Amino acid sequence: MTDTRLCRTFQTAPAAVPRDDSAKFLDSGLTSEGFQTPDWLVPDIEDGTAPSMKDEAVENIADRLPDHAPDFAGEILPRVEWAYDGEEFRERGTEQVRRLADEVGEHLDGFVFPKVGRLDDVRDAAGVLADAEREAGLADGTLEMAIILETAAARSDLREICQFAADSRLSGIVFGPVDYTAELGGRALHGERPRWDGLLEALSNETSAADIVAIGGPFDQLFHERAGVTYYNAEGYADQVEHEATIGIDGSWSLHPKQTAQANRVHMPSGEELDRDLSKIEAFNDAKREGTGAVVVDGQMVDEATYKNFANTVQKVRAIDESHPEQTGEHYDDALLSRALDVELIFN
Amino acid sequence: MTDTRLCRTFQTAPAAVPRDDSAKFLDSGLTSEGFQTPDWLVPDIEDGTAPSMKDEAVENIADRLPDHAPDFAGEILPRVEWAYDGEEFRERGTEQVRRLADEVGEHLDGFVFPKVGRLDDVRDAAGVLADAEREAGLADGTLEMAIILETAAARSDLREICQFAADSRLSGIVFGPVDYTAELGGRALHGERPRWDGLLEALSNETSAADIVAIGGPFDQLFHERAGVTYYNAEGYADQVEHEATIGIDGSWSLHPKQTAQANRVHMPSGEELDRDLSKIEAFNDAKREGTGAVVVDGQMVDEATYKNFANTVQKVRAIDESHPEQTGEHYDDALLSRALDVELIFN
Amino acid sequence: MTDTRLCRTFQTAPAAVPRDDSAKFLDSGLTSEGFQTPDWLVPDIEDGTAPSMKDEAVENIADRLPDHAPDFAGEILPRVEWAYDGEEFRERGTEQVRRLADEVGEHLDGFVFPKVGRLDDVRDAAGVLADAEREAGLADGTLEMAIILETAAARSDLREICQFAADSRLSGIVFGPVDYTAELGGRALHGERPRWDGLLEALSNETSAADIVAIGGPFDQLFHERAGVTYYNAEGYADQVEHEATIGIDGSWSLHPKQTAQANRVHMPSGEELDRDLSKIEAFNDAKREGTGAVVVDGQMVDEATYKNFANTVQKVRAIDESHPEQTGEHYDDALLSRALDVELIFN
Repeated sequence: MTDTRLCRTFQTAPAAVPRDDSAKFLDSGLTSEGFQTPDWLVPDIEDGTAPSMKDEAVENIADRLPDHAPDFAGEILPRVEWAYDGEEFRERGTEQVRRLADEVGEHLDGFVFPKVGRLDDVRDAAGVLADAEREAGLADGTLEMAIILETAAARSDLREICQFAADSRLSGIVFGPVDYTAELGGRALHGERPRWDGLLEALSNETSAADIVAIGGPFDQLFHERAGVTYYNAEGYADQVEHEATIGIDGSWSLHPKQTAQANRVHMPSGEELDRDLSKIEAFNDAKREGTGAVVVDGQMVDEATYKNFANTVQKVRAIDESHPEQTGEHYDDALLSRALDVELIFN
Repeated sequence: MTDTRLCRTFQTAPAAVPRDDSAKFLDSGLTSEGFQTPDWLVPDIEDGTAPSMKDEAVENIADRLPDHAPDFAGEILPRVEWAYDGEEFRERGTEQVRRLADEVGEHLDGFVFPKVGRLDDVRDAAGVLADAEREAGLADGTLEMAIILETAAARSDLREICQFAADSRLSGIVFGPVDYTAELGGRALHGERPRWDGLLEALSNETSAADIVAIGGPFDQLFHERAGVTYYNAEGYADQVEHEATIGIDGSWSLHPKQTAQANRVHMPSGEELDRDLSKIEAFNDAKREGTGAVVVDGQMVDEATYKNFANTVQKVRAIDESHPEQTGEHYDDALLSRALDVELIFN
Repeated sequence: MTDTRLCRTFQTAPAAVPRDDSAKFLDSGLTSEGFQTPDWLVPDIEDGTAPSMKDEAVENIADRLPDHAPDFAGEILPRVEWAYDGEEFRERGTEQVRRLADEVGEHLDGFVFPKVGRLDDVRDAAGVLADAEREAGLADGTLEMAIILETAAARSDLREICQFAADSRLSGIVFGPVDYTAELGGRALHGERPRWDGLLEALSNETSAADIVAIGGPFDQLFHERAGVTYYNAEGYADQVEHEATIGIDGSWSLHPKQTAQANRVHMPSGEELDRDLSKIEAFNDAKREGTGAVVVDGQMVDEATYKNFANTVQKVRAIDESHPEQTGEHYDDALLSRALDVELIFN
């Protein structure tokens, strides 16, 4: 787990749907290309899959991963069933983890647990993973864990849950606003759910303190309709993703390849951003050689503290370039990318 | 304590005022009808009653309850004196609780304690209730407790105070923004106090995790004046109450029967809301029978998680209908109400 | 530490800059007059001073304080180097504290520690002060401590850090938004950093519960340019300071004498505010003599709770008048000031 770990997109794909080809969406995720490849692909056995198709969902994952996982550029973490207040969900989830770890454990990066409760429940989920790992003969710590933050109990224990990550396989926390709003008894009185700003700010802080990944919630108004024509709601989703990026949420939930393509880009510095921050770093580096502490660039004071903000931008670009050179190649012009790869970072 | 417990309105009424009939407002609350009946009536011995009239306030309550309480549809919880940082307030409050429990305990549902501090102080208040209950010969747990959240110390301990509710008679937390703002040294620089969004979000979360009731703060701009005419500020109050409902605050503070009539309605699903949520539930129920996991209704994905939001609406209507059939009868047309009472709730 | 302690302004001044007179900004702060005198002057050895000039910064402070500190109306707390995640910073900071305590300890009110982490790290910094104090032969507790809240770890432990203040020399917490945003990985996507409302609200609450001082973050857009003319950004800074005052943040960070002059005024009640609150107090005092509990003034209910808000205004004016009579003399007309100094405060 490092600051430059990529987690721009968390794309859920129902692992079985009632079609002739029930693995349609799973296959689509596993074979996605370019900006449509999510950093994390999450084959969904939970809410996205009908109760009657849970077994087929597990089979589809076990069937498809050996063929597709080796060539997939991102990480793969299925979402299994779980609920802090429902034993039958935990039992089914435990069985799903066990089967997948046993059959395709070497192709998996971990599992996602929804509806966790207080710290004890998160510990239980981690224990399920440890057991499954051992039974499957996988090395200790192979399987990472992400949880969905969508209950009042988990929000209440958020700080302790994040501290638990230091000694555990917990590597990411994902916001689940729909269940969360329902648990709190919130109402979309004028058509909008609350954004839960306090929760998002705490999520960004506690995951940063624990050096794990924070992911925003899904955006389900996928399409708009006007005058009889339905179109992809690119504005609404980008607004949410940009807000998440602003407050330090590392990545965004995607329900569709188009959302993945957008979120991968938003969580990537723009050319203008990169040029601006590079210019400030270069100006500061020059001033530093002359022994000045505080430098004013374009009327803004730059010091060690502001410098680190600019260095973050450069480091992110370097990380994306390492695993997705086709994305950085498309996104930045050559001269700018070279500056980003070559500049000296005094503080970072 | 269940999810469907009604707590839409917390109406304070000064228990003694300097008039010929000093129990005027108390009587008015106890004999209110229809939508003006608060779910909780709070005869106020604290800030609403002048220091010189505290004894008369206690006497008024002891005098009026035997006549009116048996016919009153809501719960009755007097607010006594208390302050974490003032021993004389706690002593007077203790005496007020003792006298009322002894004289009219069988007509009371509990007491409200203002200006509590950290968890220890809340425990002390609970101990006062337990003692009074025993001395009055009431069954253990008869008297519930609500507290006003209006000090920095109580806000700091909010999570622990809510966890204490699991083993105690604490059943509700009410926000007190005026004292709270004063404690923090806040200023209404442009005429408006802060809304304290972080506190309200935490209050909604922690009370939900503890399964107790959360109530918003009073709205004291009761009246507006324009061109010489003073009128009830229906807009301002409704805006506040609607915001509270949106974020899952269960009920609102009322200072006036008109506010009670508004808050009872806002915390009740509108006909349009009920129809919309019923339609989604019915569409999902139909799709479920065909074995589909994720259903799109009006461009929005509906799954088990979103479903629960819609089920909340229906369950609230059923709870109100049980205790206030005249309110549901007035508020909904017959066909809609029948659908709400009859629909099958698959997840809830 | 009392409620009336003055901390309207926290002005940092680089203690050494690469000019002929390297103590230019330090001298300017120490000899400031009238509204430009900060309540706390913070000679900055950390980010405001170039790495090559740290020693000269310490020397400048040791050199200037004996001459200027005795006549300086505010408190003096140098900011030394420190970082929870950098041992070399802590070692240099420890040495800086030791030297200054030894050489000019009698002219210092304390020290400011940046980039502290969890409670343990804050304890360590307090230990450094205690050691330096003892070695310098200063009375126990002479040197106070303020910390900059600018890491995810410190935000996570904010409640515990504030509780630690009860048994320690910790007397103030200052927000550092630039480093904080960088730590969380936040981005100024549309040119603006987040305001971190949740953090500010928690900071106001926890410092109030601990009875210590809360200070907002620096505002670095010092100047604007239009049509070739650069001018002081008075609007932007005042907006930020007013927001801080509204939510009970006690004082504001200043980077410039003009900012100090503004923040000193904003954190001082306006004449209109003072007149309004005095009128309500006077009206309430009159009504109280007639035995009324709840009083309506201009359509707003005034009770003991609202009264305290008004009393806060009066008490603040009295505190400023005690130490800066020239400021209150300039700010208020004589009749108004006399009313503030003479009115009886029934509740406060």
